[in-house]
Amino acid sequence: MSSTKDIDDLIELMAKLPGLGPRSARRAVLHLIRKRALLLTPLADCLQIVAETARECLNCGNVGTTDICDICTAEKRATGELCVVEDVADLWAMERSGVFKGRYHVLGGTLSALDAIGPEQLRIPRLIDRVASEGITEVILALNATIDGQTTAHYIADELDGQVRLTSLAQGVPIGGELDYLDDGTIMAAMTARKDL
Amino acid sequence: MSSTKDIDDLIELMAKLPGLGPRSARRAVLHLIRKRALLLTPLADCLQIVAETARECLNCGNVGTTDICDICTAEKRATGELCVVEDVADLWAMERSGVFKGRYHVLGGTLSALDAIGPEQLRIPRLIDRVASEGITEVILALNATIDGQTTAHYIADELDGQVRLTSLAQGVPIGGELDYLDDGTIMAAMTARKDL
Repeated sequence: MSSTKDIDDLIELMAKLPGLGPRSARRAVLHLIRKRALLLTPLADCLQIVAETARECLNCGNVGTTDICDICTAEKRATGELCVVEDVADLWAMERSGVFKGRYHVLGGTLSALDAIGPEQLRIPRLIDRVASEGITEVILALNATIDGQTTAHYIADELDGQVRLTSLAQGVPIGGELDYLDDGTIMAAMTARKDL
Repeated sequence: MSSTKDIDDLIELMAKLPGLGPRSARRAVLHLIRKRALLLTPLADCLQIVAETARECLNCGNVGTTDICDICTAEKRATGELCVVEDVADLWAMERSGVFKGRYHVLGGTLSALDAIGPEQLRIPRLIDRVASEGITEVILALNATIDGQTTAHYIADELDGQVRLTSLAQGVPIGGELDYLDDGTIMAAMTARKDL
């Protein structure tokens, strides 16, 4: 392999990133060394900053560089709507769509009997506190349409039943989706929830 | 997106790595923040070290942290055999196979009329110097079996003609290869170079 330990160490660390394996980590490291001023040095500096400053928002679990994140502190986002998501990547996906103007609550995973993940391991107690204390009028359960995601949604719905309006994302044909490529469950859900034109 | 600039900057830089796009860069950054002690901090430190120390070997073009790389300085590798490769990734691939015990010469690319890359832009003059001064007895042209790679091999062969033994890697069926999945050119090369059993 390479003649020095530091470069080997870097390749080994890069190969641990999701989406990269040993071969692509080697390619990435060579690319970085070739573009030292443009990419390697800025990336090293940026990682150092993020390693020192990144933290989870104490209120909602979003990732940021302050104890309470920008979304939680934004006055105009206090709309009374709270969108519950599994993890930060889902929150970012919702933000990219730009359709939701309220606040978020990141659970940090889903309930899972197999992995011994109960409500206490997620941010579910904190969610119940927030619903009681922040004047929440609607909780939108934007959990993934997987078995674990839906189990978690049912659990939260039971806990908050009667305290607040509960909604979930609509299920159906995705925009641009072709029927021939959709699974039976999606077609069934879209048919059941069909709308008048 | 994320609530802070540093994290957005990091995602943007990560997305410039080969093999990562915007989506996988976001996943990688979230993974890094979750594994701060195990991955983020070591990676930041390691990148900083490599950014400061990585350089090209002045002799052969290999990447290392010293002016002359470990392979060039290793006494027992002075076998008189010199393996010419296109770039450092090819050198690493040769080293993983462990079959070659001599020294390398990294060209840094291939001749290309379209991209205006001539012998002066590659390490070809330095190769000719090394053949004359280092007591080289055999030059193995381990260039890629592409049109540019083979053009470069022919050019080098012309330049060194008569000074030294010139060889190239054998072409044929790869180990584990199935005839049905091979291209016509490979089958033709394997047939032409067939061996007695």
